[in-house]
Amino acid sequence: MDQGPAFFDVVLRQRACRDFAPDPVPDEDLARILEAAVHAPSAENTQPWVFVVVRDADRRRRIADLNRRLWDGGAGLHSRPRLAADLFAEVDASVRTGFGGAPVLVVVAGDGRDPVTRRMLGASIFPAIQNLLLAANALGYGSALMTLATVASAELRSIVELPEGLEPVAVVPVGRPARRLGAPRREPAAAKTYLDRYEA
Amino acid sequence: MDQGPAFFDVVLRQRACRDFAPDPVPDEDLARILEAAVHAPSAENTQPWVFVVVRDADRRRRIADLNRRLWDGGAGLHSRPRLAADLFAEVDASVRTGFGGAPVLVVVAGDGRDPVTRRMLGASIFPAIQNLLLAANALGYGSALMTLATVASAELRSIVELPEGLEPVAVVPVGRPARRLGAPRREPAAAKTYLDRYEA
Repeated sequence: MDQGPAFFDVVLRQRACRDFAPDPVPDEDLARILEAAVHAPSAENTQPWVFVVVRDADRRRRIADLNRRLWDGGAGLHSRPRLAADLFAEVDASVRTGFGGAPVLVVVAGDGRDPVTRRMLGASIFPAIQNLLLAANALGYGSALMTLATVASAELRSIVELPEGLEPVAVVPVGRPARRLGAPRREPAAAKTYLDRYEA
Repeated sequence: MDQGPAFFDVVLRQRACRDFAPDPVPDEDLARILEAAVHAPSAENTQPWVFVVVRDADRRRRIADLNRRLWDGGAGLHSRPRLAADLFAEVDASVRTGFGGAPVLVVVAGDGRDPVTRRMLGASIFPAIQNLLLAANALGYGSALMTLATVASAELRSIVELPEGLEPVAVVPVGRPARRLGAPRREPAAAKTYLDRYEA
């Protein structure tokens, strides 16, 4: 099987996609993307991740409605002065079109029923999500790490029927990008790297 | 420049390395690894990561001592029944040899001085750490996501002179693996994946 493009071409070009084409995402591509996800490390190798792949239009609409309600109810106002104007407009548009019209939303949850696992849930779930984003990119899909809807944890759980204890940590839209994505905007690593000790 | 092995070959083979050869890790390789790290997404694109690359033998020893103290002081006893016997023995040995004798320890911190950024610190830092682990792997290095030493946050901060507010979230050893690493032990994604709704 084709093992995808060269690693650094994938990792240096991965960025958030906020506008999707309606093209379907075949099950076999999603399976490869999620297989990459579960190869991430987790505390004590507990692998506490759960993925609910939401294809159903009604459930996607309910998640998008929840996300928009949270955005309009304060998160948008809060983010406005913190984001560049063009980025804010892009995020705002994607909220209004239901995660940019993505044909698939992956609700990623973490199993926090064990208190120790729960304390380490971020360390154990976000590496898997990053693998998911990268693998989607490697297969030519767009994706994005969205956490806003998880603020309304109980409501999000109820939409995808997650029991208490399985905590949603992200909603990741997946689909073909509506247009070619630009390069990610990042400060160079050198600006964030110190040798042996931090210096202000 | 060589863009590395095929993406899926990297992502499906990445696993924790706990025993390192003493071979040096050149600055240019570390720079590539950290450039991959900073290409991860972060909440509001705040990029709140800080990397302290610890090469100095004395500081590495102090971090290793702290880690061993926490392990011997309870974490090891706690993990023993939770880990397979061979994995426990491997982790225990790596604690005693100072992160398996890795020539470089990267202390990864997150800038939590802004309360909103702080709340999202896990979502904003662990994707970068996963990129770091994968990029190390792509260049033939071993690495591991270790969080135990961050429990003693103030002490770890003091060793690498991080001010309050820059919160250590992981210590990542990097070096050539002492021996060929086996495949990661993971349950298949299908066991963790649901369509449209979770079903117990």
